[in-house]
Amino acid sequence: MLTVFGSTALDTIRTPKKVLKDVLGGAATFAAISASFFTKPSLIAVVGEDFPKKYHNILKAHLDLRGLSVLNGKTFRYDGKYDKTLSVRKTLKTELNVLGDFKPSVPEEYKKSDFVYLANNDPEQNAKIIKEFDNVRFSMCDTIEFWIMTKKNSVIKMMKSVDAVVINDEEARLLTKEQNLITCAKKIMDWGPKYIVIKKGEHGSLLFHEDVIFSSVGFSLKSVLDPTGAGDSFAGAMIGYLASKKKTNFSEIKKSVVYGNVMGSFAVERYGINGLTRLKRSDITKRLKQYEKMVTF
Amino acid sequence: MLTVFGSTALDTIRTPKKVLKDVLGGAATFAAISASFFTKPSLIAVVGEDFPKKYHNILKAHLDLRGLSVLNGKTFRYDGKYDKTLSVRKTLKTELNVLGDFKPSVPEEYKKSDFVYLANNDPEQNAKIIKEFDNVRFSMCDTIEFWIMTKKNSVIKMMKSVDAVVINDEEARLLTKEQNLITCAKKIMDWGPKYIVIKKGEHGSLLFHEDVIFSSVGFSLKSVLDPTGAGDSFAGAMIGYLASKKKTNFSEIKKSVVYGNVMGSFAVERYGINGLTRLKRSDITKRLKQYEKMVTF
Repeated sequence: MLTVFGSTALDTIRTPKKVLKDVLGGAATFAAISASFFTKPSLIAVVGEDFPKKYHNILKAHLDLRGLSVLNGKTFRYDGKYDKTLSVRKTLKTELNVLGDFKPSVPEEYKKSDFVYLANNDPEQNAKIIKEFDNVRFSMCDTIEFWIMTKKNSVIKMMKSVDAVVINDEEARLLTKEQNLITCAKKIMDWGPKYIVIKKGEHGSLLFHEDVIFSSVGFSLKSVLDPTGAGDSFAGAMIGYLASKKKTNFSEIKKSVVYGNVMGSFAVERYGINGLTRLKRSDITKRLKQYEKMVTF
Repeated sequence: MLTVFGSTALDTIRTPKKVLKDVLGGAATFAAISASFFTKPSLIAVVGEDFPKKYHNILKAHLDLRGLSVLNGKTFRYDGKYDKTLSVRKTLKTELNVLGDFKPSVPEEYKKSDFVYLANNDPEQNAKIIKEFDNVRFSMCDTIEFWIMTKKNSVIKMMKSVDAVVINDEEARLLTKEQNLITCAKKIMDWGPKYIVIKKGEHGSLLFHEDVIFSSVGFSLKSVLDPTGAGDSFAGAMIGYLASKKKTNFSEIKKSVVYGNVMGSFAVERYGINGLTRLKRSDITKRLKQYEKMVTF
């Protein structure tokens, strides 16, 4: 059983070609929906009373929502603008709203989850939540610049409590104050987690475990419309795949990273969550085959 | 037989840790020495009377120098400075010296070369030189921002006359005025060449042929000292490997790209040409195996 804890948001996304207002977003939304193509994830998240019914229905179609709280007030809102290369995003506005008052806890029904993904929440909340599960077999977390800048010690403490850390290259550098990504990963591994995945956007990712590196490319795409949620979709695919296999050996973790690249590539091909929600399982199998062909020599 | 045509230089390289004055450099130097681990390349290049004997000996140890001209005057000099991430280089000075007056031509002894690499020379010279060979089986060229900015039409014309183009991602974008690398490659292929390799530095490269993409990672390194010549070493390994195999099918071209990643990784591990000249063939075989392990899932 897989539980995903993280944010559900109404995003305003400004891309060079199109502006989306108040669309379904949030790290947990992307991660959990991505994972849902492999297993049925349970969500711990919060929305406000204004959360549209149509978005609720999308979540419901993919996830167990017994851990979704609906609080008085407005849903967490994020507003960001991409540059014309779509590789740099500037945050224009963040309104925490109900997320600010949320006191998350693990519902009884979720406590037996053996796989847990902590999306980029407040690291103190993540560290608290992970302890509420009865028997976690494999846990993974992500983090973002905001927490590294404001609660670095808590980020490190959180990382101590998980099996795997998934993090962007720039955030790994910021967190460890190292430039070389191997050095970054070694430093994070020294804090506790056994697996580090450094995401490099379109360039793929590096997986580290002990002295071994698995390097994987991103799936090359003719057209990228909206990079929002790509990294969350990557992480969701990883943990969703592992939960479905009920295995966590290195060989399966490498495969989960490949699925991460595949699901990340779907996420960016359409606006918002549409890159994921319109998928069929056969699309994923087909792209996995294309990916394998793309890297075989 | 392989001929490499391009620049031999005395480089001043300013890295955050060390400044190198008047060291052996140049696109043809790196490419040909990299290729020399696979076959014996013939060099067409020019140096001045000031070209140090010790550098001449290095070239002589690896290459056929019957096409190396020594002209009255000073050797071509380049002076560049890397930023602290080693990913951005600023050109401080370029002194063409004897390179400015050089009228290159293919020596009789080289005319039977079936493999030809045109390093980033003046595209008009490249287009002229390639016609002087009797029976080219596989030709490849590179180019740089300077020629794209000053002689774009000649660059395109040169590309029409070769089988394969090797080019940096940013230069591919500049040349084609496209952002997406698949679109860049398609546009260049429409001009004539059947194979396009877009180099992405530490992130590896993309090989395009018809509708197929081969995507490969860079070899992950703990320490990078000097990126100078990495792209030239990459291209030299490609054409050196192909010339040694006397094969140019897609499967061998993919393998040549992998050797390109391997030789590029050696080039950046030491200052100047030292990353290549100190290599043994067994180092290359060992790293190829490590590379295969690094990407296998």
